[in-house]
Amino acid sequence: MWFVENCENKASLGLKIKKKILEQQSKFQKISFYETEFFGKLLTLDDVIMLSEKDEFVYHEMIVHMPLCVHENPERVLVIGGGDGGTVREILKYDTIKEVILCEIDEQVVRLCQQYLPITAEKLTDPRVKLVFEDGAKFIKNYENYFDLIITDSTDPIGPGKILFQEDYYRSIKKALKTNGMMTCQSESPWFYDDVLRDMTNHMCKIFNHVETYIAMIPLYLPGLWTMTFTSDHYSLKDFDRNKSETISELCKYYNPAIHSAALAKPNFLQNIVNNK
Amino acid sequence: MWFVENCENKASLGLKIKKKILEQQSKFQKISFYETEFFGKLLTLDDVIMLSEKDEFVYHEMIVHMPLCVHENPERVLVIGGGDGGTVREILKYDTIKEVILCEIDEQVVRLCQQYLPITAEKLTDPRVKLVFEDGAKFIKNYENYFDLIITDSTDPIGPGKILFQEDYYRSIKKALKTNGMMTCQSESPWFYDDVLRDMTNHMCKIFNHVETYIAMIPLYLPGLWTMTFTSDHYSLKDFDRNKSETISELCKYYNPAIHSAALAKPNFLQNIVNNK
Repeated sequence: MWFVENCENKASLGLKIKKKILEQQSKFQKISFYETEFFGKLLTLDDVIMLSEKDEFVYHEMIVHMPLCVHENPERVLVIGGGDGGTVREILKYDTIKEVILCEIDEQVVRLCQQYLPITAEKLTDPRVKLVFEDGAKFIKNYENYFDLIITDSTDPIGPGKILFQEDYYRSIKKALKTNGMMTCQSESPWFYDDVLRDMTNHMCKIFNHVETYIAMIPLYLPGLWTMTFTSDHYSLKDFDRNKSETISELCKYYNPAIHSAALAKPNFLQNIVNNK
Repeated sequence: MWFVENCENKASLGLKIKKKILEQQSKFQKISFYETEFFGKLLTLDDVIMLSEKDEFVYHEMIVHMPLCVHENPERVLVIGGGDGGTVREILKYDTIKEVILCEIDEQVVRLCQQYLPITAEKLTDPRVKLVFEDGAKFIKNYENYFDLIITDSTDPIGPGKILFQEDYYRSIKKALKTNGMMTCQSESPWFYDDVLRDMTNHMCKIFNHVETYIAMIPLYLPGLWTMTFTSDHYSLKDFDRNKSETISELCKYYNPAIHSAALAKPNFLQNIVNNK
């Protein structure tokens, strides 16, 4: 038995499955959990792979530690999407953190992950964490000059996640951030979604002084080379705290100071996309 | 219609196919060419993906330019395997090169690639190139203190490629190299073949002063994060010629000086494998 994700009718990724654990239709999407042969438990939304127990650390470490090893004193973080809780888990590794708001549109994703994916969801009961089940693009408009970091931990730009790739959303983020605040988001594969990456980058460049694309090698996001994007008016990813990065890397399976620098190096074809060539 | 490669019964990669161009059984293996929807023409051997027109540059640039931007005066290069010709094409980008021997066990691969994959095979008629159709592990024993660089451009360690992952082979390479010579080879995925990578590294560490694993993000080699390994008694990949690298990168779609340094950064879990932890 195989779970197969068709990727834009160009390629497909199959995972050998031991069994389907659960399938539920929420108000927003079909939520499925599988037990795979090699990758541990697998979460899919509308048959698109979100994460597995075995590979989730790559995505979560890279979307969190790249910005947080740059910010001098991060206290308040907003995560939009990320209902599995893995991003929140990584954020809570920093002692300076006072408040993490997780704004996930689909409560059912959070509740099922708490039941079936404790590896990512276990820290959602931490007293510093506040769960909000709302549309992130609307919720963010309640804030002004408040967050040190906003992480857009979104699905692909289809369905409920689409609005999180649009210029108006990035403007709301800028308003909700402190003047030295920062944002990171996943920004798709340069092989299959070069147009999405190009458009996002163009939107962000209108709004933020620094827009920096970086790389995470995520096994279950075909074809492995995935991008994330960092934006800030104040900080650059190049200027990271090497001591903090070293300390955090002790708690990581992927991230370390060498990877921090290396993630910013881009193959020529990717450099051309973000340079809008 | 899809071509699907089953990877160790853990995962599978599918490619949407327009048509099968050709299939021939050689003395050694089944050789197939397909026209894919997204990746251009595809070459498979025994139903394992070797390369596509669209992504081959990653592999070929990374297995060639990492060593050749380190060597001060590379003149004589041996390629073992690599019958598609892409590795030879990249080597010939250096003016210092006087002789390239391609030793491919299966002549039929070379002849069919010359017919169906000119993008990689077109330089095989260059007067500096000598084609030899023999078992690479035997052929190499004819040489002593001769080559500046040997590239092992092998398939996976099954079938005819198996011998190219063994300690005796690396000893033959050392003998065939000049004292300041170097070798690179593909060394599999740390996700699915960590044992192969660990064994190779251990073998090489007994034989060479410098053994350096580096990363290439190859879309069609599941799960995208692939390793190559460099060995030398004299050189380290860290000490590369930045000017040469800059010049070569003008002719590349992936490789550039930033990528050269970045390729040496390893995620913690990969570092642990090559450190034999």
